[in-house]
Amino acid sequence: MGNLLARTLQQIRPPCREAMEAAQARQNELTKPRGSLGRLEELSIKIAGIKGEIVRGFQHKAIIVMAADHGVVEEGVTLYPQEVTRQMVYNFLAGGAAINVLARYIGARVIVVDMGVAGGCEPHPNLVCKMIEFGTKNMTKGPAMTRQQAVDAIEAGIEVVEAEVLKGLDIVGTGDMGIGNTTASSAIAAAITGEPPARVTGRGTGLDDTGVAHKIGVIQKALEINRPDPKDPIDVLSKVGGFEIGGLAGVMIAAAAHRIPVVIDGFISGAAALIATTLAPGVKDYLIAAHLSAESGHKTLLQHLGLVPLLNLEMRLGEGTGAALGIAITEAAVKVLAEMATFSEARVSKAQKGDQEPGSH
Amino acid sequence: MGNLLARTLQQIRPPCREAMEAAQARQNELTKPRGSLGRLEELSIKIAGIKGEIVRGFQHKAIIVMAADHGVVEEGVTLYPQEVTRQMVYNFLAGGAAINVLARYIGARVIVVDMGVAGGCEPHPNLVCKMIEFGTKNMTKGPAMTRQQAVDAIEAGIEVVEAEVLKGLDIVGTGDMGIGNTTASSAIAAAITGEPPARVTGRGTGLDDTGVAHKIGVIQKALEINRPDPKDPIDVLSKVGGFEIGGLAGVMIAAAAHRIPVVIDGFISGAAALIATTLAPGVKDYLIAAHLSAESGHKTLLQHLGLVPLLNLEMRLGEGTGAALGIAITEAAVKVLAEMATFSEARVSKAQKGDQEPGSH
Repeated sequence: MGNLLARTLQQIRPPCREAMEAAQARQNELTKPRGSLGRLEELSIKIAGIKGEIVRGFQHKAIIVMAADHGVVEEGVTLYPQEVTRQMVYNFLAGGAAINVLARYIGARVIVVDMGVAGGCEPHPNLVCKMIEFGTKNMTKGPAMTRQQAVDAIEAGIEVVEAEVLKGLDIVGTGDMGIGNTTASSAIAAAITGEPPARVTGRGTGLDDTGVAHKIGVIQKALEINRPDPKDPIDVLSKVGGFEIGGLAGVMIAAAAHRIPVVIDGFISGAAALIATTLAPGVKDYLIAAHLSAESGHKTLLQHLGLVPLLNLEMRLGEGTGAALGIAITEAAVKVLAEMATFSEARVSKAQKGDQEPGSH
Repeated sequence: MGNLLARTLQQIRPPCREAMEAAQARQNELTKPRGSLGRLEELSIKIAGIKGEIVRGFQHKAIIVMAADHGVVEEGVTLYPQEVTRQMVYNFLAGGAAINVLARYIGARVIVVDMGVAGGCEPHPNLVCKMIEFGTKNMTKGPAMTRQQAVDAIEAGIEVVEAEVLKGLDIVGTGDMGIGNTTASSAIAAAITGEPPARVTGRGTGLDDTGVAHKIGVIQKALEINRPDPKDPIDVLSKVGGFEIGGLAGVMIAAAAHRIPVVIDGFISGAAALIATTLAPGVKDYLIAAHLSAESGHKTLLQHLGLVPLLNLEMRLGEGTGAALGIAITEAAVKVLAEMATFSEARVSKAQKGDQEPGSH
């Protein structure tokens, strides 16, 4: 394990109990029946625990979109040509992708990171280059990357967050781009959760049933050839992962270390979260699952993470699009806690029977 | 039926097919796999049909919160004293309620309407007075209101929307405040859908099991004594409804007539939508269900409306809080359609097999 990774893992602390209790107490004094804002209340309490205090909103928001390519595309696991990864990086930089639109809408900046796009990307003032290699190797023929590259990828994610922290970062969303990366993510999910590949493999960008069956076979082959150790997430990442997935795991670890909430996007971010939380279970307290992806297998993955998604809008694009919407919901929750009047401030009567919460909520 | 209501119902037209087809065609050209933004794509197409064109966002957003009291509270169906309705109206006007916070967050104005608060409200420059009477009568002893009052309530809602249209109104959310109004809403739902009261009755602001059983009995008694005609929504509204529920039905009808999308909140707005869509089935094309409320029975109600909610955050507050979040999701959907680059603009390659959508999506 690298020094930066080891040091960052050691910085992760549990959320602040006192701040969570203060947030809960304030929720109970706000002019509404107790618990009537449901998951917004829960979110506001979680954020208070992460930040160590009740905050008024998020001044600095960012979506970190990590892009890389996957050697496994040689096996015909996706409908899109590999060049789309690079083309979409340019689309992100030009502001024309879905994540750019949604990030603008929520007032977040988009950080585009080249973690290892095949053939490389042209330099651009807004492109963060953390290129490990021009794409992973074909995991059906051996490890996708070396163990050192896996550590490098995670540390690159940590470095990206640390650079953003210097600019101001109050909440971060994760996003991904990489043709073939649902295949790598399914392989990671199968390796770490022990679920059969069929249970954690979906259509990606739009495979038909035959395509999915082939993809499952490819994942099975990769797992058989590489035999990743489920207890060693760096081994899993190196054998069947991807550079952007490692980078996103690093983002989550660094955000936890810096007490920054991380709104994780869909399936690929979920696989990264499996890597991050297996390395350091304490990361989980800093994660918010934005949405349930339409990618089959995401539900199983979230259950293993112990996270309940905020949204279910049948999205399956990646890029951080779900995370952007999740950040908006989270900010709404935080503002409710900070800005609402209390019963006494507003001179509103409380419930006659003590406003106890019913058992079902 | 009043002249204003009859005239407004006649103005309702179906959504524009051509605009919906143009929106669908553009969705298919945007730089993402077809269908990968799920319900955001569906929403953007619905809005195009409502507006008759692809729009870039919603400049003028409003939440209309209608407040009134309910004579049925004499039967002990709620934990909060009746005075809370008026107190919360003042809280809305002072900007301290949850809906104020969420409306500020999404950039919407809040229109507070007194439809019939018990004892009346002090005049306030931002309070719209459409008071029908100081609360409904106890529906277990006879009709909650006269037939004329039911028409007046709906027409008051139409007038509120027409006044807002003059100021600019591109999307509207519905909200309610009224101690006892889940009881009236459950009675409306049972009357119109034919479901047994137990299936459409929940805890309101926090009743325990005994309280809910008592509330169901009260609703049954009101239905037996009044025998509302399910085919005549004005009869249902007058016998077991509420002034704010009638007002919200009017808001939905007027919005449909003016081709303005209406994001409906939770259980009370759902009961109003049953009234509105039974009067004019064409209203449904203009409704967006914001969220599934934690109020038991809301799911059944939405199924009868044929609407699938966008969010499920276990909220059960009312006021339009769910609608506010639903407006944000809807605006995000509209912006994605308007602002994303197409494959040709961004020079991104399309899928190799024609980017067909798989059967499951």
